[in-house]
Amino acid sequence: MAWFRSLIQVSAIARSSLIKPRSKNTFHIAPTPLFGIAPFSSEPTLETQTQSVTQFSGLGPTKTGDKPRVVVLGTGWAGCRFMKGLDTKIYDVVCVSPRNHMVFTPLLASTCVGTLEFRSVAEPIGRIQPTISQDPGSYFFLSKCIGIDTDEHVVQCETVADGANTLDPWQFKLSYDKLVIALGAEALTFGIHGVKEYGIFLREVHHAQEIRRKLLLNLMLSDVPGISKEEKSRLLHCVVVGGGPTGVEFSGELSDFIIKDVRQRYAHVKDYIHVTLIEANEILSSFDDRLRRYATNQLTKSGVRLVRGIVKDVKAQKIILNDGTEVPYGLLVWSTGVGPSPFVKSLEFPKAPGGRIGIDEWLRVPSVEDVYAIGDCGGFLESTGKPVLPALAQVAERQGKYLAELFNKIGEAGGGHANSAKDVDYGKPFVYKHLGSMASVGSFKALVDLRQSKETKGLSLAGFVSWFIWRSAYLTRVISWRNRFYVATNWATTFVFGRDISRI
Amino acid sequence: MAWFRSLIQVSAIARSSLIKPRSKNTFHIAPTPLFGIAPFSSEPTLETQTQSVTQFSGLGPTKTGDKPRVVVLGTGWAGCRFMKGLDTKIYDVVCVSPRNHMVFTPLLASTCVGTLEFRSVAEPIGRIQPTISQDPGSYFFLSKCIGIDTDEHVVQCETVADGANTLDPWQFKLSYDKLVIALGAEALTFGIHGVKEYGIFLREVHHAQEIRRKLLLNLMLSDVPGISKEEKSRLLHCVVVGGGPTGVEFSGELSDFIIKDVRQRYAHVKDYIHVTLIEANEILSSFDDRLRRYATNQLTKSGVRLVRGIVKDVKAQKIILNDGTEVPYGLLVWSTGVGPSPFVKSLEFPKAPGGRIGIDEWLRVPSVEDVYAIGDCGGFLESTGKPVLPALAQVAERQGKYLAELFNKIGEAGGGHANSAKDVDYGKPFVYKHLGSMASVGSFKALVDLRQSKETKGLSLAGFVSWFIWRSAYLTRVISWRNRFYVATNWATTFVFGRDISRI
Repeated sequence: MAWFRSLIQVSAIARSSLIKPRSKNTFHIAPTPLFGIAPFSSEPTLETQTQSVTQFSGLGPTKTGDKPRVVVLGTGWAGCRFMKGLDTKIYDVVCVSPRNHMVFTPLLASTCVGTLEFRSVAEPIGRIQPTISQDPGSYFFLSKCIGIDTDEHVVQCETVADGANTLDPWQFKLSYDKLVIALGAEALTFGIHGVKEYGIFLREVHHAQEIRRKLLLNLMLSDVPGISKEEKSRLLHCVVVGGGPTGVEFSGELSDFIIKDVRQRYAHVKDYIHVTLIEANEILSSFDDRLRRYATNQLTKSGVRLVRGIVKDVKAQKIILNDGTEVPYGLLVWSTGVGPSPFVKSLEFPKAPGGRIGIDEWLRVPSVEDVYAIGDCGGFLESTGKPVLPALAQVAERQGKYLAELFNKIGEAGGGHANSAKDVDYGKPFVYKHLGSMASVGSFKALVDLRQSKETKGLSLAGFVSWFIWRSAYLTRVISWRNRFYVATNWATTFVFGRDISRI
Repeated sequence: MAWFRSLIQVSAIARSSLIKPRSKNTFHIAPTPLFGIAPFSSEPTLETQTQSVTQFSGLGPTKTGDKPRVVVLGTGWAGCRFMKGLDTKIYDVVCVSPRNHMVFTPLLASTCVGTLEFRSVAEPIGRIQPTISQDPGSYFFLSKCIGIDTDEHVVQCETVADGANTLDPWQFKLSYDKLVIALGAEALTFGIHGVKEYGIFLREVHHAQEIRRKLLLNLMLSDVPGISKEEKSRLLHCVVVGGGPTGVEFSGELSDFIIKDVRQRYAHVKDYIHVTLIEANEILSSFDDRLRRYATNQLTKSGVRLVRGIVKDVKAQKIILNDGTEVPYGLLVWSTGVGPSPFVKSLEFPKAPGGRIGIDEWLRVPSVEDVYAIGDCGGFLESTGKPVLPALAQVAERQGKYLAELFNKIGEAGGGHANSAKDVDYGKPFVYKHLGSMASVGSFKALVDLRQSKETKGLSLAGFVSWFIWRSAYLTRVISWRNRFYVATNWATTFVFGRDISRI
């Protein structure tokens, strides 16, 4: 019971050494033994009522005989690609995330207008890494991480239930041999008031569902007697803020939907619906000028109004720009880039420029043992002399793949367990090679920019051919065959029968 | 402006002659002209704040030159089948419903466990009757009917927004030449406390979505450290109340899901999940004894616990039976049959046994002109000497088909407009011929009972063959080719890749 003794110490020193959100009262020391399943009390204790925590337990450290345990925080591109590549004969994998699936973000915009089904862009973890919830030592926990104790190699988690069940959330702890932080980033609002309240982001499936429900609701309500022309125009004014790939692709999909489906199915209101894309600088700033001009023409041609402006304030039915212009809207989609989440900010690790978790060339968090950060939540430390990589699926996917291979190598060399990888040769550091950027602009047109960076020369395409490349590229990137099949079917049916407009 | 003058009278006499819910203050006389689009005021008026009604307008009566207007209340089997069959060269059709799609109820149970996609069982009205929202005189209004004025041939409606938008609901009126009431029925709770609060019905797509989300949430939470064996068993105890086709099919689907997917994907908790079907009498009481016995064996074999009992009370985490037994549950699905909705009850029409709207052999509401009732909300008056038909999709579908043909006939004979069908020969009355009942019991087994009624002799099948009949029968019944294609695809993919378990 050496591991048990060592854990009694956790409770003693935890308060001092715990890297946790700076807000108080997030870390509770339980009187009961910290690990092993503690009895569940259905009557809420005083603690429950005050902190909605029922009790405390978890998974203790692995013994030398056991497989080493890798704890992965997050189920985005980075975390999922890592779990997919990890050799589960060497490691037990425990994944902690409030989401049991990966979202295939590049196609999310298509689901809002019914081009694709929601199911087609969501990949359950169980398919990405089948051993999870099957192997005795591998788990998926529907929870969020609320604290990391790097000295003791312990993470603290709390269950999430989004109000759907009758259980209070409770906390538990996981000992890790290796920790992979892949918590991603969160949408930036630049502190503009009302964005979170009235705008919808486009990062999760439930965002797409909300956009879809609202769009169809507005289309139907605007046809009901007793509504004025002004109100009709407001309801059917879809405003997209942010001219990055997401904003542009959503605008493109939306104008496709309007041209192909609304005009036919909502004939009475077709003249009232409009799309406006608001961007402070230039749209698709990462693409080359020719492509940018092409995108601008394409969007304008398909009826998207491009507005150069900075949003100052967001109210329930209108946006106010810096120059005082008031823009009434019925649907507001906000996609102005991403930044580190409050939890990532709160972690007391060395930080890379922009507040991301600082990592070295091997994606390690240098200040501590056995902790790695990949995807949008991590960035190279200035000391590495490397730039912080853009928050792209492409980067996250490549880092996940690299880290899985590194872990397998370390594991084979016997460095899998906690504090045992010091003498292992880590081999080549991670090098990112940009494969180019793609963006659809609607009506069977897309941009493909195959240059290494903004500066270098290289191939760039626009039009139907690149649209085709775009689609097939995504089709082969969708992780499981099941979803490849679904996406292909969806595209085919949409092409033949039009988009789905049932509001469910 | 004769029609306009006639409408000023509406406001004068409406209060007296309006057949409306008995509750007070549901009918407001507007100071502004009743019809034509009234100006919309974005500032909520006093009236808005008190009654959340912004203003009043609608569609006036058709003139002799116009097409006659058929107003259809509801988008269930009856209403949709009627609209599909109606000749829109003769009639303008205006549909009023809080739902813009028809739910293919027989397959709804399959969507809860991911065998089918939600989209596959929802058919947008626009596909069923394409002229809706396309023809100048045809509309779909996302609203509910709140009052019927049969003297003036006017229905009063109020928009629904399920809290998703920033508009207050408002009221409007529709003049009809013919009114088709197809409002369906609602789930019976027998006044048992807690059913509406804690149980989930299986009548709408959002019910299926709720069941699915809850089932997956419970599966995942029960795997998290810190939960006791008792609590785990409770979370994973799925209780179905009501042994009719819906309850049995859902239990079957659920046990399939457990056997084929949970055992493999949630290996840690597979021994804790159980399904219990509670029925006061016999399951599938409408089927013949042999089939009933077969179903019982089949369900028991696949692990469904059949309990004979009457529910007395429903609490947040347990059901209490009449004999005092307490049944803890994590998921409660309630399907104990249907009865007339409060609005249908409140209408001052002659009633059939069981509180449905009384109709004659031609599905007319005899006491008034140009009003018809079809589907679960209507029933033959005792005076007709016919029995009230069971609340089956089959009946509703047949009545919708019959009424559409009757309307087309009346329309061709020039009786389409209000009060003008008196001398038209209505021809043959509606006669219902039962085509038999079907129910799936899971694991590729189903029952098919082809007898005319419980008494008569006739063919009855059970097993794989009838399961195949069941599936193909439904496949050909799904209304659009698009959905036939989708259902087939879903079944194929589920068969090959297993069910979808992403919780979105």
